Amino acid sequence: MEVPARRAFVNITPQVEECVRESGVTEGIALINSMHTTAAVFVDDDERGLFRHYETWLEKLAPVVPVNEYHDDAVGEDIIDAHLKRQLLGREVVVAVTGGRLDFGDWEHLFYGEFDGGRRKRVLVKIIGE
Amino acid sequence: MEVPARRAFVNITPQVEECVRESGVTEGIALINSMHTTAAVFVDDDERGLFRHYETWLEKLAPVVPVNEYHDDAVGEDIIDAHLKRQLLGREVVVAVTGGRLDFGDWEHLFYGEFDGGRRKRVLVKIIGE
Amino acid sequence: MEVPARRAFVNITPQVEECVRESGVTEGIALINSMHTTAAVFVDDDERGLFRHYETWLEKLAPVVPVNEYHDDAVGEDIIDAHLKRQLLGREVVVAVTGGRLDFGDWEHLFYGEFDGGRRKRVLVKIIGE
Repeated sequence: MEVPARRAFVNITPQVEECVRESGVTEGIALINSMHTTAAVFVDDDERGLFRHYETWLEKLAPVVPVNEYHDDAVGEDIIDAHLKRQLLGREVVVAVTGGRLDFGDWEHLFYGEFDGGRRKRVLVKIIGE
Repeated sequence: MEVPARRAFVNITPQVEECVRESGVTEGIALINSMHTTAAVFVDDDERGLFRHYETWLEKLAPVVPVNEYHDDAVGEDIIDAHLKRQLLGREVVVAVTGGRLDFGDWEHLFYGEFDGGRRKRVLVKIIGE
Repeated sequence: MEVPARRAFVNITPQVEECVRESGVTEGIALINSMHTTAAVFVDDDERGLFRHYETWLEKLAPVVPVNEYHDDAVGEDIIDAHLKRQLLGREVVVAVTGGRLDFGDWEHLFYGEFDGGRRKRVLVKIIGE
């Protein structure tokens, strides 16, 4: 993943479906997780309007931290909010694989949520089963 | 699942235990997830008092959104809060299966949390192991 | 786990790595979960400064509940906040096992988050694969 903006939500369902196909697994589970502590992987509707609400909501619950407001010996103070936002949406998703496909409900899509973008990041996909 | 009310918390441990029994799996893991983006699956004590607190708390952190407060082109604005509430409690739970049973601590119970009820919904249970 | 303080964050990565080694599994997944409803297992950087921020943030979002503020017939009112804090950080983590090791990003560490300490508690580690 490389997201130029500081924050973004990217639908990664097609890439993960491709991983499932390549694995040849027809019955099992897929683990999809961010390998970075300032990015999330989560499931939701693919609605742009919804994600604008998410941005407002995440900023309200886990605002950017003014440097002088918190404990001043913390490392990486300018990305504290990114850690908190990612905890709200979660690090990982586990999805059932049935008949060689992600076993999703009609509105379920996988998203990568970036809160400290601008550099190369990785998402891990591990598929187990038969 | 069909919950007549808009919101509800339902203990689904017995049904999932039954799924584990039927699967014949004695050692492995069980994935239990909501197939809808406005419902959660999570673990907690089975205490009615606790769930009344949850309702208050979820409404405080992810209140019902007045239509004019947010971005006006969003689809399904009247259930934005249901998406946010579900993210706070989570989409899925993964539980160890040991000796043919859910390997839970003494106070752990599985709950389905509905935030947009009144219609038929599904919970997926996938069990892998031997 | 036995944490003398009411709240604490403990890096449990070495113990879980040891479990993976002992299991002999080289390709698969590991489930790590709290067996208590007032404790969390989650992934983050191992930065003491970050955890001081977490304490402030969790207290803001899920404060200790004054006994008279909520529904008075709730059991265990004095630990309501511990349930809510744990939901924010999550009950469990699923990690890929690759080449016989936890397949973590550079900054990923496993943490046990205690919100009602002072007594003996358990973390479950289940490893499946081959």
